[in-house]
Amino acid sequence: MVGAGQLARMTCQAAIGLGVRFRVLAADAGESAALVCAGTQLGDYRSGSDLMEFAAGCDVVTFDHEHVPGAQLDALERAGVVIRPGARALRLTQDKRAMREWLTERGIACPPFAAVASTGGIASFAAAHGWPVVLKAVSGGYDGRGVWVCSTAREAADVLAQAGSRGLELIAEQHVAFTRELAALVARSPAGQGAAYPVAATVQRDGICHEVLAPAPGLPAGRQAEAQRLALAIAAELGVTGLMAVELFDTADGLLVNELAMRPHNSGHWTMDGSVTSQFEQHLRAVLDLPLGAPGLAGRSAVMVNVLGGDDPDLHDRLIHVMAADPGVKVHLYGKVVRPGRKVGHVTVVGDDIARLRDRARRAASYLSHGTEEP
Amino acid sequence: MVGAGQLARMTCQAAIGLGVRFRVLAADAGESAALVCAGTQLGDYRSGSDLMEFAAGCDVVTFDHEHVPGAQLDALERAGVVIRPGARALRLTQDKRAMREWLTERGIACPPFAAVASTGGIASFAAAHGWPVVLKAVSGGYDGRGVWVCSTAREAADVLAQAGSRGLELIAEQHVAFTRELAALVARSPAGQGAAYPVAATVQRDGICHEVLAPAPGLPAGRQAEAQRLALAIAAELGVTGLMAVELFDTADGLLVNELAMRPHNSGHWTMDGSVTSQFEQHLRAVLDLPLGAPGLAGRSAVMVNVLGGDDPDLHDRLIHVMAADPGVKVHLYGKVVRPGRKVGHVTVVGDDIARLRDRARRAASYLSHGTEEP
Repeated sequence: MVGAGQLARMTCQAAIGLGVRFRVLAADAGESAALVCAGTQLGDYRSGSDLMEFAAGCDVVTFDHEHVPGAQLDALERAGVVIRPGARALRLTQDKRAMREWLTERGIACPPFAAVASTGGIASFAAAHGWPVVLKAVSGGYDGRGVWVCSTAREAADVLAQAGSRGLELIAEQHVAFTRELAALVARSPAGQGAAYPVAATVQRDGICHEVLAPAPGLPAGRQAEAQRLALAIAAELGVTGLMAVELFDTADGLLVNELAMRPHNSGHWTMDGSVTSQFEQHLRAVLDLPLGAPGLAGRSAVMVNVLGGDDPDLHDRLIHVMAADPGVKVHLYGKVVRPGRKVGHVTVVGDDIARLRDRARRAASYLSHGTEEP
Repeated sequence: MVGAGQLARMTCQAAIGLGVRFRVLAADAGESAALVCAGTQLGDYRSGSDLMEFAAGCDVVTFDHEHVPGAQLDALERAGVVIRPGARALRLTQDKRAMREWLTERGIACPPFAAVASTGGIASFAAAHGWPVVLKAVSGGYDGRGVWVCSTAREAADVLAQAGSRGLELIAEQHVAFTRELAALVARSPAGQGAAYPVAATVQRDGICHEVLAPAPGLPAGRQAEAQRLALAIAAELGVTGLMAVELFDTADGLLVNELAMRPHNSGHWTMDGSVTSQFEQHLRAVLDLPLGAPGLAGRSAVMVNVLGGDDPDLHDRLIHVMAADPGVKVHLYGKVVRPGRKVGHVTVVGDDIARLRDRARRAASYLSHGTEEP
């Protein structure tokens, strides 16, 4: 796996159980997965030679992020390296405009969008779709970075100027009035087998996935099936191998695709404790062309809440409190240095009553972050 | 953790989630845990200097087996190393006679036993307790090694002669007519907190734990509570820190203690998928003096079956078959070279109907071992 963040760390954990020899390409020995992986190689994911050297010891290469340059992905494939997902599919995760064009060409609904390169372009878009306008960097953004919700032409002009000075291309997107945000997580293997997890509801805070409820409470069965079919169809059409998370807006007029991620995803962390097969094991099974595992719920419901770093870098005393207060909460820590706002772990609670699970998971995550149970 | 077998491997997996820096002392880089642990140190668990060097980098030292010599355990403690469980408790797991004497002194029932050093001693024991007589090596046995069920004085004399030539001391034990074998798994922390898992039924084959059913089917609630109380009392009395498995015979006259193990144990592998807190996470929590996790069932029942090596060393094709045949079975592989009869993994199935779970787990394990679903 190229990249050594928490996704690689949790994939490493799953690989142990499968008996798979797992290696990571890490920029630094202190990275989340590098701390725990016996097969860590240090190198730069932007360097063709580092990638080739890493790939030489692997049957299959997969990714913990979307940032390997497209030219390097192409070079790996040309050199005969098996990369999963493949370069063609990954390209869409690196280019928000291309992804939206691809979806639109296939009649898959996403929010109205347009490439914008001038204040005039933004004004035209706003005239058609109203304020606020969401501006997004075409590439390089994640966890709320590279996304700006602009309420006025003045705000949008500022974002445009800053983006221009950093060489970023932008798209404008309608600020959709959604009922809720959903995540449809699917896996697809090279053999073409597909598996769809129960659709989860995601709650974002400051553009970062904060809370995930599985299954999405109150989601009609028909709408869940529609989301699963949509995600499986996209995966099949693109030839995705591995996991794919489709982030969706549920609106009065139907489902809109917001983002695609072709790797284990924050919206699927609940599967580690709440599903028969964790997303990390499933990703490995898929990229290694093993038969997929059952994606069903292990309990009736699961709630995952992210643990963000707070002001106090020492988690240990807070961990003791949380473990003592609720012996049933599952704490997953990433071994990362605590910095304010940084994702340093997550908690999951599995059980029956989703309101109660949500309360427990929120208390635990809040305490781990801030030393108080009030979020 | 001293030792790098599958127990250390699965503890390593649990340590990743807890954010614990985990190291193993391995004899060989190819050992099960050494293959996956980023903190592997090579060395000999019988060597005082290797143990001290290993311990120098650890806050707490724990064990994947019982074979560290008592003198070395004492030396570690004298040097101020925190070992959990401590030397006093571990000593009983290294000396079957001392363990039985300790239990008997405290009025805890175990099968009638006697130290035997001659054919005359065995004859006297058999006269009092009948044939067959079970002979056990006082130290060094595991997985059926060091245990001989002798039906005649002639067989016993042969065992005695062989043991004598290898310098082994023996005890004789009554061959108990039990209803079933049980395992009571508990954890105890230095702070004195205890946690008891649901009591499991174990099925041995050739002296090796073959199948574990949790909770033990048909076990009356009172008998389960008795087993849990007994295990917690032994742990408290001995000051055990970490996990302890108490193997029990359930007989018409009550429970008899068969063996004690002070570490994660094969009879607790079902907890990885079948309990809220796996025994490996629980062991880490206990030895690190963290509050213990909930030991309750995650589903209604769980069945674990060991995967023993068969004649064909290549598991891969058989793994594909098992995964395709039953996407809900959880396969855990240890990365060990397959040799006939060697424990190379286990499978667990969690669900409602224990007869059905048992059938599924047996089919999967049998196929992984032998390429046929008929055990």
